[in-house]
Amino acid sequence: MEPWRVLESRCVYDAPPWMEILRQKVALPDGRIVEDYHLVQWRDYALIHAETKDGRVIMIRHYKHGVGRVNLTFPGGTIHEGEDPLEAARRELLEETGFAAKEWRLLLKCVVHANYGCGNVHFFQAFEAEPSQSPASGDLEQIEVVCLRRTAIQAARESGEIATLDTVTLALLAEARQ
Amino acid sequence: MEPWRVLESRCVYDAPPWMEILRQKVALPDGRIVEDYHLVQWRDYALIHAETKDGRVIMIRHYKHGVGRVNLTFPGGTIHEGEDPLEAARRELLEETGFAAKEWRLLLKCVVHANYGCGNVHFFQAFEAEPSQSPASGDLEQIEVVCLRRTAIQAARESGEIATLDTVTLALLAEARQ
Repeated sequence: MEPWRVLESRCVYDAPPWMEILRQKVALPDGRIVEDYHLVQWRDYALIHAETKDGRVIMIRHYKHGVGRVNLTFPGGTIHEGEDPLEAARRELLEETGFAAKEWRLLLKCVVHANYGCGNVHFFQAFEAEPSQSPASGDLEQIEVVCLRRTAIQAARESGEIATLDTVTLALLAEARQ
Repeated sequence: MEPWRVLESRCVYDAPPWMEILRQKVALPDGRIVEDYHLVQWRDYALIHAETKDGRVIMIRHYKHGVGRVNLTFPGGTIHEGEDPLEAARRELLEETGFAAKEWRLLLKCVVHANYGCGNVHFFQAFEAEPSQSPASGDLEQIEVVCLRRTAIQAARESGEIATLDTVTLALLAEARQ
């Protein structure tokens, strides 16, 4: 099963530093040529399932424009150029929620989209999280930090209060590791 | 927690019927104006966890250009204009794998990306899948249909042979429902 060969790659839309759309001319293994295959380049990001000593998980309730309504997500954000993914996860947890955690582990790194690419998401799990400073994310959203029991997260997943693919995935990954 | 108000919305890149990039001018609840918030519009799609009578799950091994290597995914594809999501799931399973299944249920519908939107993914679970016709997906990829035990899927998830967010999620959703 041969990989595709990229014959040409051209940036057709650019919104630095967030997004770049590439249009590629590719050769398939069967000899066909596709003139306009699109790849989407986003920055890699980290998403964090951080648990306090008393077994509550830190989440954020906010309006997200991609969803069009208020919903619950895990804290997280893009990994800066040259930044270690774990360091980015620590930074984002602190900036968004004010919490710092002692133990960390990478649960999974995967590609966001099979066809378009879209960079990688790094799912982290953290333990013994404690309030450390006031949140100051610098994000566009007004956020409410909430600490929820795992049963409440499962209920939020089933009710649609959790509405986005990556937060669903991290909730399931953490449940599977319970 | 107020939603953002869209003051202007302009298509800045269009690759019909696959993708449309919108640049919006939005008003945040705190009065700030953001001139260049991007939304990505992809078509909704279905992904299918279909199990045969003897407890094997139908997957596809193929080169995916967004990943850049051969990997395992569940069958699935975009929902056509006006098509019911369940009908799309039945059609994609049949076209890609040649299997038809008796019992179907929607496990979850969620938004692909919290910031960019990117449409919805509909995760289906199907039972009593049987070979019904020869696969003929019309997709660009050369595909190999494989029927795997759930334990093999879990191993593929942990080894990275499953490499993409949506297939990880559906594997976890099905494990949680076991």
